[in-house]
Amino acid sequence: MNPKEHPIEGVVLQPLRVFEDERGAVMHMLRVDSLLFKRFGEVYFSEVRPGSVKAWKRHTRMTQHFTVPVGRIRFVLYDDRPGSPTAGSLSEIELGRPDDYRLLVIPPGIWYGFTGLAAQPSLVANCADLPHDPSESENLVWSTPLIPYDWKGRNEF
Amino acid sequence: MNPKEHPIEGVVLQPLRVFEDERGAVMHMLRVDSLLFKRFGEVYFSEVRPGSVKAWKRHTRMTQHFTVPVGRIRFVLYDDRPGSPTAGSLSEIELGRPDDYRLLVIPPGIWYGFTGLAAQPSLVANCADLPHDPSESENLVWSTPLIPYDWKGRNEF
Repeated sequence: MNPKEHPIEGVVLQPLRVFEDERGAVMHMLRVDSLLFKRFGEVYFSEVRPGSVKAWKRHTRMTQHFTVPVGRIRFVLYDDRPGSPTAGSLSEIELGRPDDYRLLVIPPGIWYGFTGLAAQPSLVANCADLPHDPSESENLVWSTPLIPYDWKGRNEF
Repeated sequence: MNPKEHPIEGVVLQPLRVFEDERGAVMHMLRVDSLLFKRFGEVYFSEVRPGSVKAWKRHTRMTQHFTVPVGRIRFVLYDDRPGSPTAGSLSEIELGRPDDYRLLVIPPGIWYGFTGLAAQPSLVANCADLPHDPSESENLVWSTPLIPYDWKGRNEF
């Protein structure tokens, strides 16, 4: 399986293997010998309750490697990088089993956010190439007018 | 939080931080600057259906770093390493939220297996220090008489 370039420059979607048996599936995420691996920084999880939104975030140095081993997540990406061939592009990507279990690679400079689509809490795993460092990321509130995306009333409880 | 030595020589249990908010928790797993990090090999997931057993496995070179971000898992460890100060020891360890979200480090040479205790499928994450290599692991069937542990009828569907 070769990594697929995504419509936003530098973003990659990689199909991942899932091995099902009656006890429960084994799911790949990332290996040191993957073409998409640069270096290890930190692996952590973000649980997303149904309908809640975690947005927006942008990193200056860190690359994200996301999978969704439980539930279903819609990621929204926005490219406002000056000089990017895809500047101004907005993209929605859904990850989840069984048909969309993939690795989503987001390079620095892209705004991203996500929302939980499953009836139960979903789980996002991130294997980032740097450990968490608040000095290299920026946040905007989910409802900012600076990004042309409408979460349609999500994040209200 | 300092890593705690476990009763089996070389096994470590490390408390991990969980940051709860109304959208869903963020859960730490492993950072490159952790005292428990040696090198990155592969990160993957193992889903465990209620009552099913995944056992037994032993690695000759690989160290496992397990967390349970969803559900609840009982790990069972058995030390039959010749010359180990804890040879002959058997240990049960439960991981899961909210009170037992921890990192379990299992060095090479220890037999281990696990079972799902939650009503829904549980998720085991493993950040191993080597990529998967079938030549460096051994398996025994879950009901082997070679390990003095009774899974009590689990693994029957």
